[in-house]
Order: sequence, then structure tokens, then C-alpha cells
Amino acid sequence: MACGNAQWPATLAHTMLEPRRIKHCRRCGAVADYRVPADDNRERAVCTACGEIHYENPLNVVGTVPVWGEQVLLCRRNIEPRFGFWTLPAGFMELGETVAHGALRETEEEAGAKIELQGLFTLLNVVRVGQVHFFYRARMLDTSLNPGPETIEARLFHEHEIPWDQIAFRTVKLTLKHFFACQRSGDYSFHCGDID
Amino acid sequence: MACGNAQWPATLAHTMLEPRRIKHCRRCGAVADYRVPADDNRERAVCTACGEIHYENPLNVVGTVPVWGEQVLLCRRNIEPRFGFWTLPAGFMELGETVAHGALRETEEEAGAKIELQGLFTLLNVVRVGQVHFFYRARMLDTSLNPGPETIEARLFHEHEIPWDQIAFRTVKLTLKHFFACQRSGDYSFHCGDID
Repeated sequence: MACGNAQWPATLAHTMLEPRRIKHCRRCGAVADYRVPADDNRERAVCTACGEIHYENPLNVVGTVPVWGEQVLLCRRNIEPRFGFWTLPAGFMELGETVAHGALRETEEEAGAKIELQGLFTLLNVVRVGQVHFFYRARMLDTSLNPGPETIEARLFHEHEIPWDQIAFRTVKLTLKHFFACQRSGDYSFHCGDID
Repeated sequence: MACGNAQWPATLAHTMLEPRRIKHCRRCGAVADYRVPADDNRERAVCTACGEIHYENPLNVVGTVPVWGEQVLLCRRNIEPRFGFWTLPAGFMELGETVAHGALRETEEEAGAKIELQGLFTLLNVVRVGQVHFFYRARMLDTSLNPGPETIEARLFHEHEIPWDQIAFRTVKLTLKHFFACQRSGDYSFHCGDID
């Protein structure tokens, strides 16, 4: 699935911080009201019939910076949001996997690249959309690619070739900037940051 | 809110990996069926009436290792699961906050401790319950404490005083073990790991 930190279209509603989006109880189907439950300090969607409390929490987006020599692999998006823009392979972390496994899976699904994960490289909070983005550095094992249906094309870029004004998401741009700075210094330290 | 990696009671159902727990659509209240939507490769709860797709993803649990000299602050849990066991202050990350802000908030809510965050210290995947746990190192600014309703008592422990057989969660135990090893070596490096 797609990742992002920008405005999202309605078709990706689960990725948005749509206020009070839970209208009905997932357990019994009755109407849910937003109120502060006992022993809590935040408004939650509470079922008016069975009392089920529905929590809403941030989502993790997990991906990689696949590297071949001095080049980095980018994917051109075949889906909204940011159709036609370039991104690092990334998507929503799924149940049943670790952050690292999710990053590997997304790289396989979106680029068909064979990689070996290296260290966790960036952790970027995107509070406005309720997401945390994680990128691992990854060593490409060869240059064979097999982009999936979410990708128009995947290709390797030297730093001077990066289409900076056509990068899909700010977390991707920040991760790339950090990567090339690290490539120059030789110090690939882990970076935490926030996107406004 | 509480954190954990163990079996959870039904009263904390939102924290469990309860299979197929979405019975009704959050948008219209109609019955939801689990099936693989078009353009997807996983089973999701899909509304039989309006088609809304309900994604379920891992949750982040965020907390701190509050440090005063050579001592670490633990909280004795006043809530299930693991009532009466000791934990580091931690809980579910909320919408509207960063990982770091959530860790600060939980430390304030559960211990009433005044802290200054230092680096992210551990990231631990707990795949079985669909959680990722994050602990920051934190410097306590003084020893004043004001435990909230989820905490029976909060107190400082030297390493030899830690009640290892009464630690609430494995991620807490692993983070404490890592912390004291780092305290001895002087190298507080970031640690990623998985809990089976």
C-alpha cells in the first residue's frame, strides 16, 4: 500500500485524520458517539448500545533506501496520492510483521528488488496525518527489478539525477537528503525527526 | 493507557490480535465480511452494503527509561493486565502526537515525573500482539513523583534492586537489561529487536 504525508484523496480515507469518522460500532453496528469514557482523558467513539470503545491510533509506514553503489532506487507511483511522482518503496506496516519485515515486503512488492536490510535509518513523525514513517538502509543484491502494479517504473538514481521537485512525500525527500549527506560523510547515523 | 506483550484480558480487546473482530461497518453499521479486496493481497473487513474497507494495523506503545543517577524509575501497575507488576512508564501512542511526545506524556501520566528526553533507546516488535514498543532514555530533573490512577506506586531502583520476576512485560525487561549493560559500557546505543 501507499505511504504519504500530504493531503489524501477520499479514496484513501483510512490514511487521513478524518475527524469523528467512526459512525457505527464495529461489534454490534449500533450508532457510536464521541465522548470521553470513564478512566480516560480523550474523546473516543463509544457504542451507544453495547459500550464498545473504539480507539484510533497512529499508523506506521515502513520502507527502505535501496542502494546500489552510489545510486538509490526510486519508484514512480502508479497510484494516488501523488500519481506519477517518485518515492522510496514504502507502505503501511501490516499485522503479523515487524517494522523490518514490512520494509522488506514493500520493497519486494513495489520494486521487485532483491535487498539485504541494513540499519534503521530514519524515523519521521507526520503528526498531521497520524503516521510514523520508518526507512531502513538496504543493500541491493543485484540490479534486477520487477515493479508491481503500484509502480509505473523503478530505476536507480545518482544524487545529481534525483528529481527533487517530483518527489512524492516530504519524508522521502528528507530521508534522501539525509542519505546523501551521510554518503558524503561516511557516517550513516540514525535520524529521528518531525514533519510539520 | 497500558502497554504489554502478554495475553490480554477481554476488557483490553483493542490491544489483542483478536481474529476477525470487525463485525460491522464503521461508516454505515451494516455487516462486514472478511475478504481480499480488489487490488489488495490481504483479507480485510469489507462492508457488505457500502463497500468500506476497514484496515487493521499494528499499534505503537511509547515510553521512557527515566534515570536519576544510577537509578531507574519503575511504576507498579494499578490496572490489568499485570496488575501489581512493575513496568517502565509507557502506553499507546495517540493521534496528534509524535513518538517522543507520547513517551513524555505517558511518563507524566503514570509517574508524574519531570524528565528531559534523551535518545530513542529501544524499538521492539511484538508481532504476536501487533505492537511496536519504543523506549526513550530520559533524565529525571528531580525526584518528585506524582503517580496517576494507573500506578500503585512509583520508585527508583538500583540495578541490584530490580524485581526481575515481577516485571510486567518482556519489552520492559529487555529494555532494562539493555540499559544496565549500556550503563556499564558507557555506550547507550540504539537497539532494535523482536519479541517472539
